[in-house]
Amino acid sequence: MRPLIFVTNDDGIEAPGVFCLIDRLLPMGDVICVCPDSPRSAQSMALTVNAPLRIERVEDYHGAKMYKTNGTPVDCVKLGMHTVVDRKPSLLASGINHGSNASINVLYSGTMGAAMEGCAFGIPSVGFSLTDHSMQADFSPCLPFVDRISEGVLREGLPESICLNVNIPHFGPAPTEMRLVKAAKGNWSDEYKEYTDPNGKKFYWLTGTFSNYEPDNEVTDQWCLSNGIVSVVAVSLDRTATEFHIPGWLPNGKSSVF
Amino acid sequence: MRPLIFVTNDDGIEAPGVFCLIDRLLPMGDVICVCPDSPRSAQSMALTVNAPLRIERVEDYHGAKMYKTNGTPVDCVKLGMHTVVDRKPSLLASGINHGSNASINVLYSGTMGAAMEGCAFGIPSVGFSLTDHSMQADFSPCLPFVDRISEGVLREGLPESICLNVNIPHFGPAPTEMRLVKAAKGNWSDEYKEYTDPNGKKFYWLTGTFSNYEPDNEVTDQWCLSNGIVSVVAVSLDRTATEFHIPGWLPNGKSSVF
Repeated sequence: MRPLIFVTNDDGIEAPGVFCLIDRLLPMGDVICVCPDSPRSAQSMALTVNAPLRIERVEDYHGAKMYKTNGTPVDCVKLGMHTVVDRKPSLLASGINHGSNASINVLYSGTMGAAMEGCAFGIPSVGFSLTDHSMQADFSPCLPFVDRISEGVLREGLPESICLNVNIPHFGPAPTEMRLVKAAKGNWSDEYKEYTDPNGKKFYWLTGTFSNYEPDNEVTDQWCLSNGIVSVVAVSLDRTATEFHIPGWLPNGKSSVF
Repeated sequence: MRPLIFVTNDDGIEAPGVFCLIDRLLPMGDVICVCPDSPRSAQSMALTVNAPLRIERVEDYHGAKMYKTNGTPVDCVKLGMHTVVDRKPSLLASGINHGSNASINVLYSGTMGAAMEGCAFGIPSVGFSLTDHSMQADFSPCLPFVDRISEGVLREGLPESICLNVNIPHFGPAPTEMRLVKAAKGNWSDEYKEYTDPNGKKFYWLTGTFSNYEPDNEVTDQWCLSNGIVSVVAVSLDRTATEFHIPGWLPNGKSSVF
């Protein structure tokens, strides 16, 4: 039996990136694709607990079975696994995202939220992102890396509780190299553009710019992207910070982390 | 000047848990509270990038300045920091959540999403959760622990990029002990209840039960809660899995994690 590959994204069922991803994966296995019915960027691992969810089959794409839901990327994985998957997928591929998910973006990203959810199901899971936000993005720089990484993960699997965050630069010459690196420390400036509505009430729209806090030559995912190299970050599902020492306000001897 | 304490939650501006938290914190500093205008459970670190946000001042509570937004918990932190905070908070306290955020729940939790966001701002941040989901929950078991941990964190701070996930059991005798532990490996069964709408179309509602994958005597946050002990987990903002080894499909010498 051919391996089953579960595809999802956060840009929604009409985003070009997901069709590009499916085309690369179809030679490797049977593809089931479950995507949100509209864009759900920056949904992180949000899930729907207090509202009804629907999943609806739409037209096949080049032999891939296609479904849409009214939920988040994590809902797509959970509901897809519950309702339309008949055997355990050998790979969950999320993306290809329109926009970078390097550095702190991994925390907010719906693309990576879905990959983390796949990982929680015990499925080897990879999120792919191209640094170009445009819906007209050219995904051709991604293709050799999607092939190589997907084939590699299908062949070798991934360790338990680890998924991959792959980011591909879209500027300059097409990348020829990828590196396994750490996520850069960085953050957004979180500016908001302020508006006044016709009733005189203020509203706000998120904007802002990203700052990389790492030294210029520190080799991170952001460094890779700045140098035309594809970044691969291994992302842990387990968040416990084992390097944290017992603070003064915790009674002695009451730590059981180690 | 008194320390500034930023309070938020994911159960919304009307949830009893947040008023309980504010009452404990008011003796320690000036409190600004920014909460979602309605419940936003399981919103993880979701944020609003493609829609307008509003923030509105509501009636003060016992001297705390109170605001509501139409956004997620992370939006509350970002927009609150941008619009209503005049100096860097010395503590961000999120909760008290109505329901457990132990084990894998830390990933989905809006309470912890807000704490992670506070941590990304460089604010010592703590999420507090009581294991009782009820809106009529009795928060009295939390009070000594909210006091002790908040006073401790205000006094000693927290290491960069680490926040705390505190869970407090609500059953049995009131807890007298807390421990610094790791998060339990575990997951939800992800069942969905299936319904048929009046038009004959199916819809689904998430349900399911939690399974702890750890051995019975492994000391984790779930173990603490099962044994009437308050669990404190140090949560890392950095997700890079440094224990991941170079897979066969990555060219030799191209790893820069270590």
